[in-house]
Amino acid sequence: MAATDLNTKEHPKKPRILIVGGVAGGASCAARARRLSEDAEIIIFERGPYVSFANCGLPYFVGDVITSEKSLLVATPEIFKKRFNIDVRTQNEVLSIDRENRQIQVRNVLTGETGAEGYDALVLAPGASAVRPPLKGIEMPGIFTLRTIPDSRLMKNWISSNNVKRAVVVGAGFVGLETAENLARLGIAVTVIEMLPQVMPPLDPEIAAALQEHLVAKGIKLHLGDSVTGFERGSVENTIVATTKSGAGFESQMVILAVGVRPETALAKQAGLEIGSLGGIRVTEHMRTGDANIWAVGDAVEVRDFVTGEWTLLPLAGPANRQGRIAADVIMGCDSSFRGVQGTMVCKVFDVTVASTGVSEKTLLRHRLNGKDIPFEKVYLHPYHHATYYPGAKQIAMKLLYSPADGRIFGAQAVGEEGTEKRIDVIAMAMQSGSTVFDLEEAELCYAPQFGTARDPVNLAGMVAANALRGDSPVAHWTDAGITPSFILDVREPFEFDSGHFAGAVNIPLPMVRNRMDELPRDKEILVYCAAGQRSYYAARILRLNGFSARSISGGIATFKAQKGKLV
Amino acid sequence: MAATDLNTKEHPKKPRILIVGGVAGGASCAARARRLSEDAEIIIFERGPYVSFANCGLPYFVGDVITSEKSLLVATPEIFKKRFNIDVRTQNEVLSIDRENRQIQVRNVLTGETGAEGYDALVLAPGASAVRPPLKGIEMPGIFTLRTIPDSRLMKNWISSNNVKRAVVVGAGFVGLETAENLARLGIAVTVIEMLPQVMPPLDPEIAAALQEHLVAKGIKLHLGDSVTGFERGSVENTIVATTKSGAGFESQMVILAVGVRPETALAKQAGLEIGSLGGIRVTEHMRTGDANIWAVGDAVEVRDFVTGEWTLLPLAGPANRQGRIAADVIMGCDSSFRGVQGTMVCKVFDVTVASTGVSEKTLLRHRLNGKDIPFEKVYLHPYHHATYYPGAKQIAMKLLYSPADGRIFGAQAVGEEGTEKRIDVIAMAMQSGSTVFDLEEAELCYAPQFGTARDPVNLAGMVAANALRGDSPVAHWTDAGITPSFILDVREPFEFDSGHFAGAVNIPLPMVRNRMDELPRDKEILVYCAAGQRSYYAARILRLNGFSARSISGGIATFKAQKGKLV
Repeated sequence: MAATDLNTKEHPKKPRILIVGGVAGGASCAARARRLSEDAEIIIFERGPYVSFANCGLPYFVGDVITSEKSLLVATPEIFKKRFNIDVRTQNEVLSIDRENRQIQVRNVLTGETGAEGYDALVLAPGASAVRPPLKGIEMPGIFTLRTIPDSRLMKNWISSNNVKRAVVVGAGFVGLETAENLARLGIAVTVIEMLPQVMPPLDPEIAAALQEHLVAKGIKLHLGDSVTGFERGSVENTIVATTKSGAGFESQMVILAVGVRPETALAKQAGLEIGSLGGIRVTEHMRTGDANIWAVGDAVEVRDFVTGEWTLLPLAGPANRQGRIAADVIMGCDSSFRGVQGTMVCKVFDVTVASTGVSEKTLLRHRLNGKDIPFEKVYLHPYHHATYYPGAKQIAMKLLYSPADGRIFGAQAVGEEGTEKRIDVIAMAMQSGSTVFDLEEAELCYAPQFGTARDPVNLAGMVAANALRGDSPVAHWTDAGITPSFILDVREPFEFDSGHFAGAVNIPLPMVRNRMDELPRDKEILVYCAAGQRSYYAARILRLNGFSARSISGGIATFKAQKGKLV
Repeated sequence: MAATDLNTKEHPKKPRILIVGGVAGGASCAARARRLSEDAEIIIFERGPYVSFANCGLPYFVGDVITSEKSLLVATPEIFKKRFNIDVRTQNEVLSIDRENRQIQVRNVLTGETGAEGYDALVLAPGASAVRPPLKGIEMPGIFTLRTIPDSRLMKNWISSNNVKRAVVVGAGFVGLETAENLARLGIAVTVIEMLPQVMPPLDPEIAAALQEHLVAKGIKLHLGDSVTGFERGSVENTIVATTKSGAGFESQMVILAVGVRPETALAKQAGLEIGSLGGIRVTEHMRTGDANIWAVGDAVEVRDFVTGEWTLLPLAGPANRQGRIAADVIMGCDSSFRGVQGTMVCKVFDVTVASTGVSEKTLLRHRLNGKDIPFEKVYLHPYHHATYYPGAKQIAMKLLYSPADGRIFGAQAVGEEGTEKRIDVIAMAMQSGSTVFDLEEAELCYAPQFGTARDPVNLAGMVAANALRGDSPVAHWTDAGITPSFILDVREPFEFDSGHFAGAVNIPLPMVRNRMDELPRDKEILVYCAAGQRSYYAARILRLNGFSARSISGGIATFKAQKGKLV
């Protein structure tokens, strides 16, 4: 069969589209391809027993929040057949790709039979597998990963048959923390061990801090900044001791490894397709590999970071779905391309929600170390999620990263309860169009007392940053308070000052600042702080207009505490 | 004193800024002006007893959700003085403006004393007053409006001293419905009378429909499409009968007039400032009136509609705050301008939230009638607010209006429970940057099972509209089903069809469509529908790819019902 570039629109009359992997990216690609062509022959090969299942729901299935396994199945092979005329072959593993002859070798996992299947277009959507590091004792029974429905079934069985009362979760990312919550819900005492000194590694530590506190308050034991070195039998029958680098040991009846996922690239490697430095399959913005007839989508591919332009891995369902659609479009001759990822994410653990979009400060600093400096500024704020005059208002801790040159938004992170992810969604949408902090300032958002304030937290984030950029109120950070020879002014009320303040700070409450200016130095910079940054902003404005050099410390005491600052 | 144009930056050394009105716009303006100048003399004149109070909270204060009157006071004259060095003069009515001499006449409401005050800059922020139509009997005791704290206090006293068991609310907008809910919360039987045949006049009726149903389910009696003509004494002592155009009478112990607000323009008129055709003060994008030294902000001014470019009135706190800041900026010589209003709004009544941004279809049709046609297309959808595999997923009814030329978003409306206003906020942010439905399709939003789906409702709205614009799936509406000589195909399952369908529709369930195409006509258009629009989209794609002329009816049966369509 002559090589036909499908993208030239010279389609074979009935293109044969083979898709390897049938969860988010593969399933979307197949369904979209069918909507673009009734003639195409579309076959999904899935190694596992299920296609299109909701793996984001697995921790909740373990915790009996989701009670029916069936509800995790977004679609079944029967639905694919009836609704989309798509042939789904589960328990069929694709062994190799013969690019020259455009064929794949497939093995039926149940019967062991193998056979060849020819293709006009091949889409690799193999996903990613849970990392199982080669640690001593890793193969002991009772050590699980949670990535598939059978994984969750094994865990549930183990919990009931061993009457599990204590568990160790290794890794404090999404899956680790969601699993910890769900095990706790079952009455299991949970210890989470995390290599980094914070939970939720994608976030900056001072934003993760509130979640960390909440986990502890909910009875989760956290062991941070230490890594697991291996597993041993415990003193009691069927117990496992997770040992760590620091020499600690944590005994429990089950261990959940939640240390991330790794792109499934065996097939791509075998076929000689390019693999990126992060270990994912390299594709163009059309999701095409170096082979004009092979596409790749989902957790297995590297994608471009929207902010930095660098390659990244982002194994999330939303982008995988979009990539699947785009691959189908391109295969069928439509002009579609993937715009990269912002990394928008949310995670709720117990009552606290953390959400983020764009890059973190950690990411920007890592790029700086690698010689790719993207100058940035940041602001912190702690606004209430709705009007304080309406019952139930709670604070959201927010961080906004932006360009000091033009105010373009680089990223935002938030932690709080209700309405937390809403603010990140709004900022994610703003970032998509290249909006600036000045645009956030001007955003016209929903306001009623139950939902927000006349100045929404998103507006406030924009205002604080815009005031800094305009030079009205240049921003200072707690790190500045440590290093510059400055005068530290606390403008809270005396009772607040007395309950704990920055060492060496002088207290002049905001209402007294105008009358007590003679107590302030004109020969050095005054760094002003308050509880969350609002009163200090007012005070810094007063001082600047009166000829002092003054900056407000962003986020105030709330941010200081989140940064593990010690009050005196 | 020589006329100085403050905008030329040739400020008087200590400009004297007088502000008439101290709620949202006036208070923001004052505080902002102070942050820009320590030298300016800033005085707020407020006719009422309070400044900066939360009038959006008043219905909840009436309903005892907000229990402390004090919590409605966002700021007091004392706070203004201590924090901002702003002189607030409550109970001081500004009687007239002497533009030539740059003076205002002020009367102390308590003492009756009058005096003149000179200004360099004058800011009019008089707000709007509740409309009290000149109906027969309107001055009877027991007939209230709810706009100020004293209003709410009067209502509360009346309710307790008259042991109110039945109330009539006239007007089914925000204030009317929020008040109805709060009266019901107090155990009062409430009837709402509305002139239009729908509740929430800013929304299109088919979106308001769900809220309407919910109100009825919660025991609120709705009397729509009829207007109140007057009030009479009732049969029982102290009761009031509201009589209507249709001849009906509604007896109750109290009446709340919630028929909108009217810009306070007496002062502006007296001063000969331009008043727009909608009755608001006309200002430039710098919030300046025709007099270079007089600005106006808030509910009293006309503003530009962001979508249509036409003048409009939008008496909401968010825009008022922004306008106040902008006026202060301009007065102090900064380059700020108001970008117009999108009309973003939200209202929660009992468990249901309605939210909207941009223009409604009603508004676009009104413009068309007035010869200012803005071609538009619309789509309906009914996505779940979070993943269906996670407990508690509920549908949101959404409507998206956009340009058929380039996909630019004109407006969006939604009604549902949790997460409703979030989707409108995201679309509001998208609209601000001129984004299109293609951008919504590509948006990368927060997804975890508690918050959304891998394809968020915002993405889905974008996809449906984008599929229509690309010609993949042109959209049809129920109105088309009534007028075109078409074939109506219902692709739901037989049990759904039997439970009620469009008169004359033929039922072929989606999974059978490919096998039963010979039953379908090739000589006329096929309009396909299902429950909410997804299956009909699939079916329409199948038919189109097989050479039929077919369109999916947007929103399916759910939208048909919302449009008061009758099923057979």
